[in-house]
Amino acid sequence: MVEIPKSHPRRNSLLSRKMIVEATKKGLLADSAMIAHGRGEAFDYLLGEKTSNSARLAIKESAARLVSSKNPVISINGNTAVLAGKSLIRVAAVLNCPIEINIYYRTDERINNIYSLLEEEKKILCQENAPKNWKGDWKSAIMSVEILGKENDGRIDGLEGPRSICSANGIQKADVILVPLEDGDRCEALVSLGKQVLVVDLNPLSRTAKMATVTIVDEISRAAKLILEEVIENDLRPTEWNNDEILIQALEVIANNVKA
Amino acid sequence: MVEIPKSHPRRNSLLSRKMIVEATKKGLLADSAMIAHGRGEAFDYLLGEKTSNSARLAIKESAARLVSSKNPVISINGNTAVLAGKSLIRVAAVLNCPIEINIYYRTDERINNIYSLLEEEKKILCQENAPKNWKGDWKSAIMSVEILGKENDGRIDGLEGPRSICSANGIQKADVILVPLEDGDRCEALVSLGKQVLVVDLNPLSRTAKMATVTIVDEISRAAKLILEEVIENDLRPTEWNNDEILIQALEVIANNVKA
Repeated sequence: MVEIPKSHPRRNSLLSRKMIVEATKKGLLADSAMIAHGRGEAFDYLLGEKTSNSARLAIKESAARLVSSKNPVISINGNTAVLAGKSLIRVAAVLNCPIEINIYYRTDERINNIYSLLEEEKKILCQENAPKNWKGDWKSAIMSVEILGKENDGRIDGLEGPRSICSANGIQKADVILVPLEDGDRCEALVSLGKQVLVVDLNPLSRTAKMATVTIVDEISRAAKLILEEVIENDLRPTEWNNDEILIQALEVIANNVKA
Repeated sequence: MVEIPKSHPRRNSLLSRKMIVEATKKGLLADSAMIAHGRGEAFDYLLGEKTSNSARLAIKESAARLVSSKNPVISINGNTAVLAGKSLIRVAAVLNCPIEINIYYRTDERINNIYSLLEEEKKILCQENAPKNWKGDWKSAIMSVEILGKENDGRIDGLEGPRSICSANGIQKADVILVPLEDGDRCEALVSLGKQVLVVDLNPLSRTAKMATVTIVDEISRAAKLILEEVIENDLRPTEWNNDEILIQALEVIANNVKA
């Protein structure tokens, strides 16, 4: 693929696309990951490729729930690992919680590839300065982020087959799950188990968006950076949350952008 | 990929996705073809996955212009060949015009693969009955559809590099071009040459959609079947066409579908 000029108005979108194409070649992603990414591109285009005010509210609410959680976990699939792996490792370091690799079309090979990617990224993140306003030993916080997902020792009740597999110390134990780009069935099952499910989904009409406890209608790499800022703030409290209202606001953003 | 139940409400969309994934594995499509397909899926979802009244008008107008044309050509890229190759060969048979393979990331290998696919499909189409209301020798009409695109003997003035290559007897000579899923630069160059450019594009905000003479905002496999019906009708005359108005109507369909 050709170099993308720094001045290109859609540079971030094109860079993300390039990352997904390259990760597919490296065996990190399932066949249909590029199609899912393309769907996301279209919704993001209609959202103006920026974080809306209502997405910002959902990010604050998600951060509040993660910070207040007893056993939070961040569930990551292939596309999320590629687009926002580093940011989400930082979030896990601040929260002192594990990351669980949980992919829809489960193969050991892809789980191992994503695991290697995230462990590599931890090594890189150790070298950086701690995020602004965060106090503590950043290297040790990063290195203590456990990457779960290879164990197969947990189950999500209410699902059948490979999709029910999870980690006992991760999703199974968690009370609050941040799970970007989740599928509708699994989102529904997790909510039925009484867990708080915080999703990042660019389609405000998707079943996942409608089922979740809190839906962040935003692109995952943008959202993950903002979640990091908010969990560092750390003075947030969960509110009475009306998720339907937030979806309506996301739809209004799209409707306004297609207004002729 | 798993079998898609006949009763699935989004069966056609899932079947198309499967065709694109399989064609990618066979080397018919560029890396980013699946991403482009995903973008299309999202827009089609927002259009309700059906042909709108305004798209139907654009299909009628396009058919009228193809029928009235002196030298029509149908330009086909990889995704179009996979999703609507058969229907467009039928359209070319009715119009007695060539098809030109013209792909964005041009490689001889992919042009040859698409060529083989279309020649195979011609052999299959020879065996079928002529379409309803069409009179003549169907087998001979199908077999006389010339598949251009390997020659490299024409140029699109105003473009640089591989994207300027076309066939002298196809796009270069044509007065009317039906070109589904075209990129913005090439659409603009073709319009600048005084050609009528009829596009099929699910994104009514794209540069291609805005540049074209007539924009059919519809999914290519649905649109191609309807174009076939209309060119067989054959009693159409081109009108004074307001393409901006048709794009506004497409945007209104999306806006209504996202209305909360």
